Amino acid sequence: LNDANWLVYSAIAYDCIYNDLSAAQRARIENGAFRPLCNYLTHDLKDWFNLIHNHGVWACAAVGMTGLAIGDDDMVQQALMGTDKNGKGGFMAQLNNLFSPDGYYTEGPYYARYALLPFYLFAQSLHINRPSLKIFDYRNRILEDAFYAAIQQTNTDGAFFPVNDAIKDKTYVTSEMVMALSIAFGVYGHDKSLFSIAEKQKKVLLNGNGLMLAAALVNTRNKISAFPYKTVEYTDGANGDEGGVSILRNGKTNSLSTLFFKYAAHGLSHGHYDCLNIILYDNGNEILTDYGAVRFLNIEQKDGGRYLPENKSFAMQTVAHNTVVVDETSHFNANEKEADKYNSEKWFSVFSNGTQAVSAVENNAYKNVKLHRTLITINDKEEKPVIIDIFNITSPQSHQYDLPFWYSGQLIGAGFSYHTYSTNQSTVGTANGYQHIWKEAEGKTDKGIATVSLLNGASFYSISALADTTTKLFFIRSGATDPSFNLRHEPGFMIRKQGGNQLFVNVIERHGSFNSVAETSSDSKPGIERIEVIINNESYTIAAITFRGNKYVIAISNKDNRNETKHTISIQDKPVKWQGPFYFLKTTIINNKN
Amino acid sequence: LNDANWLVYSAIAYDCIYNDLSAAQRARIENGAFRPLCNYLTHDLKDWFNLIHNHGVWACAAVGMTGLAIGDDDMVQQALMGTDKNGKGGFMAQLNNLFSPDGYYTEGPYYARYALLPFYLFAQSLHINRPSLKIFDYRNRILEDAFYAAIQQTNTDGAFFPVNDAIKDKTYVTSEMVMALSIAFGVYGHDKSLFSIAEKQKKVLLNGNGLMLAAALVNTRNKISAFPYKTVEYTDGANGDEGGVSILRNGKTNSLSTLFFKYAAHGLSHGHYDCLNIILYDNGNEILTDYGAVRFLNIEQKDGGRYLPENKSFAMQTVAHNTVVVDETSHFNANEKEADKYNSEKWFSVFSNGTQAVSAVENNAYKNVKLHRTLITINDKEEKPVIIDIFNITSPQSHQYDLPFWYSGQLIGAGFSYHTYSTNQSTVGTANGYQHIWKEAEGKTDKGIATVSLLNGASFYSISALADTTTKLFFIRSGATDPSFNLRHEPGFMIRKQGGNQLFVNVIERHGSFNSVAETSSDSKPGIERIEVIINNESYTIAAITFRGNKYVIAISNKDNRNETKHTISIQDKPVKWQGPFYFLKTTIINNKN
Repeated sequence: LNDANWLVYSAIAYDCIYNDLSAAQRARIENGAFRPLCNYLTHDLKDWFNLIHNHGVWACAAVGMTGLAIGDDDMVQQALMGTDKNGKGGFMAQLNNLFSPDGYYTEGPYYARYALLPFYLFAQSLHINRPSLKIFDYRNRILEDAFYAAIQQTNTDGAFFPVNDAIKDKTYVTSEMVMALSIAFGVYGHDKSLFSIAEKQKKVLLNGNGLMLAAALVNTRNKISAFPYKTVEYTDGANGDEGGVSILRNGKTNSLSTLFFKYAAHGLSHGHYDCLNIILYDNGNEILTDYGAVRFLNIEQKDGGRYLPENKSFAMQTVAHNTVVVDETSHFNANEKEADKYNSEKWFSVFSNGTQAVSAVENNAYKNVKLHRTLITINDKEEKPVIIDIFNITSPQSHQYDLPFWYSGQLIGAGFSYHTYSTNQSTVGTANGYQHIWKEAEGKTDKGIATVSLLNGASFYSISALADTTTKLFFIRSGATDPSFNLRHEPGFMIRKQGGNQLFVNVIERHGSFNSVAETSSDSKPGIERIEVIINNESYTIAAITFRGNKYVIAISNKDNRNETKHTISIQDKPVKWQGPFYFLKTTIINNKN
Repeated sequence: LNDANWLVYSAIAYDCIYNDLSAAQRARIENGAFRPLCNYLTHDLKDWFNLIHNHGVWACAAVGMTGLAIGDDDMVQQALMGTDKNGKGGFMAQLNNLFSPDGYYTEGPYYARYALLPFYLFAQSLHINRPSLKIFDYRNRILEDAFYAAIQQTNTDGAFFPVNDAIKDKTYVTSEMVMALSIAFGVYGHDKSLFSIAEKQKKVLLNGNGLMLAAALVNTRNKISAFPYKTVEYTDGANGDEGGVSILRNGKTNSLSTLFFKYAAHGLSHGHYDCLNIILYDNGNEILTDYGAVRFLNIEQKDGGRYLPENKSFAMQTVAHNTVVVDETSHFNANEKEADKYNSEKWFSVFSNGTQAVSAVENNAYKNVKLHRTLITINDKEEKPVIIDIFNITSPQSHQYDLPFWYSGQLIGAGFSYHTYSTNQSTVGTANGYQHIWKEAEGKTDKGIATVSLLNGASFYSISALADTTTKLFFIRSGATDPSFNLRHEPGFMIRKQGGNQLFVNVIERHGSFNSVAETSSDSKPGIERIEVIINNESYTIAAITFRGNKYVIAISNKDNRNETKHTISIQDKPVKWQGPFYFLKTTIINNKN
């Protein structure tokens, strides 16, 4: 990989000085350095070169750009079509297979950022030297889609969603994204919506595209609007048939709420065992968190920057994510080969008038257990965004189901009693990531609902969980079994249920405001009043949420997800009719509480 | 206090509409509201009104400003001289007694901020209505000194040093500081060095001074330089004889390093038991931290915003600070009355050519134990700032001495072996704050030196401690015995020694750089090589630090702190002569390590 990196930049450099070199000098450089190294990549490392993987992109870019710089068309052909020139390897195959049809990169946005660099640099070289290829139009402009998909998978602060192995500091101001943005701006029609990002990057690529971008920025200064983050879904897999991700967004610029839902393929060797995981950003901050990777880039004392042991033993494990763990074992038993065989499947998604819903199913993470999660965001004009999270688990056998919510913020209050492990505490478990989690407190409730409230930045957030008297509630914190202090100590709230079929219903809401400097605080208590399960069977899951005097009824069809199917069901003795797999009704309760 | 607050603002409001009211309306308002309330303060709450305390300042401002607004000179006199008009209470006594001669406010900068509001508002009213008082010139411009002392006790991000009970979010953009700054700008000669702060405040006071400031800001835009933070010392006590604080600064604007050293009086009811405590800021971040107060302003679930129980049981206790705890009990046994009787004493301070040193002694915090701490900052041109911390403890009896360093950052490495409490952990102790601290790991060393390295922001930091084989080293974290989750979980490194006379020598250094986005990291290892104690007896403490090929020899005179005294002592068979209580010598070691 280092050789490929070196070649990419050396080819660019050589191209710049080519005209100033004598024939003898050229021969010496080409035969002494470029050809042997390229030969090494295409012969000695032939299998690696032909891999459909981000390392392979670097290799093809290296050989292809060298070929263009020294005028060797055979090298260019091998780079484009693989060493056997049959299209099974090479850049075109990579363009065909590493991205889904709408530009999602299967390793996730953190690695998309990394892969975009060789993709864009080689494409730019081809664009100039092989214009007939129309590389930037290839596969219905896949490189454009890939770039925008990466950007859409960032928070308002530019941080990439920490899907799979991801270092959370990485934002779109990295050098890879600077290069990709300058080129994309130039070749895809000078999109003004990129200005706010270019401004934060504070750099452009030193070429014609970069110059155009810089000039356009100067002319637009003070009138730059924020990047248009939007609700968007991406399929995964070369054919778009390996699940995907949904990003549900509500609100404007600074108060944007972003719910990320992953039901994609495993994501290769850097994949985490996190089927149906969610991450929530709000008001610019990460609220429900994903740990990301356990790694400190380039720090000598931290194994020189390599992935640390706790990356595998904690960060990759299911319990490090906001999704269900069955019997304290990770999805696919944390076996990469097994995980790579499958992907979750979208059940439906519905986007309408203030309400957005996505539903997905995972059938293979555990034997004989079906995981089915539906997320609904409600964005009433009069209210702050509310998320309803319905996680339905069915199995013929009894299991233990754990649903953690890892959060960022200060715990403000809990609506149930709990016992704190005050002077001595132990880990929640002994394996599969549980050995890295302290059990800080344990509680239960007889109120049917368990609420925790947090303060993060200028807002309060509450998570309210459907709970019966057998539901166990834990306050947990990462950082145990960590002999080299590699882990961050981050808090979580975990709900544990036991049984065969179990339904988790959670309501996540932002409320109130807090300003420590101005000493103001309002609405620190949540709006949730009640969570009811009306029906939960093989055919339907129907729940009702009472919230600030409104009642939201949500119905999910569990057996039939066709949009044309008409459903009729009796809810509280009233027949309710609807069409399609999802039904949502808001009613205002008269004389609420009075 | 609420009544006094209300009166201050109502008096201002009444003054604004006075001319538009009829005589009958005025009589109704004055006799119906102002006079009874003022009477309540000066008669019913007479003792409280006459208190020399920040609450008393509000009371005097309330009655005095009301007196000015309604034209009642007797009220103004009571406000200025106390209810008995003998000067034992009242605003003039407060100006005389609440500040030290150089403007230090005994409760610390967080409360100085709060007190400055009534001080400045009442002074401004007097300035206009009783110009002959020359209130802003009073006591050698004490209000000017108080304002600048508060500003100098902030970090570059504007946060007040969290001395005593302090909420760490508070910065100089609070409304109190906006008002004080506008007035100070107007009455004390339009100081341009305040522009950068006014710009961050984004507000001015709505009066003539504020208008002048706003106009000046507009004219200066884009040419505003940072506030000139400097090395400064303040005495404590009305007569300046109750110890004080030293703030040692090195470096420029963004990379400013600030070491705060407290050897002041206790600081009344909000005082912490933190004699000889230090706080370190560097590169804009707090590195060695002070917990501040346990309190969430105005949050209903957190006791409505009051000080929480853990404020007294943890945050006030000595072990929550970066200073020595003897036998696991806090200074003065955490008894406020006892603590209020005493103050630490400065032993010396020396500021010269790149080297700054401050030394202070505490004789009363523990019976028969003398605590003597000396801090030296070295700012060689070729090196990043280095702090040498020499904490000398003498006692005829054997004791356990704990010196914690609470830090902010990620632990990167430790230069000694330790045992981690991986799956089960307990508190470090059972009382005096120790019950709130988890013991995460315990270690020792036979190398004579124990180093821990941290990453904070873009820099590495190392703390290296003199350690013999009996020295115990702990990794600790706050957050135990916390049933309502009121505490933040913050890490620390604690050094424990046993004996009568014990010497702690610590070297704290910034080194290297880290950029996660650009993936660069350099010099993650510290420069420290060796810590030696050459002499430690009743008369002298002499230590030598070997650091990146330089040897620093530091000598402290323990018995005689007169500047004129000449000292001669044999160090490694060479006679060394110097004058005054402190001697510092840097030598470059030839052929270091080669």
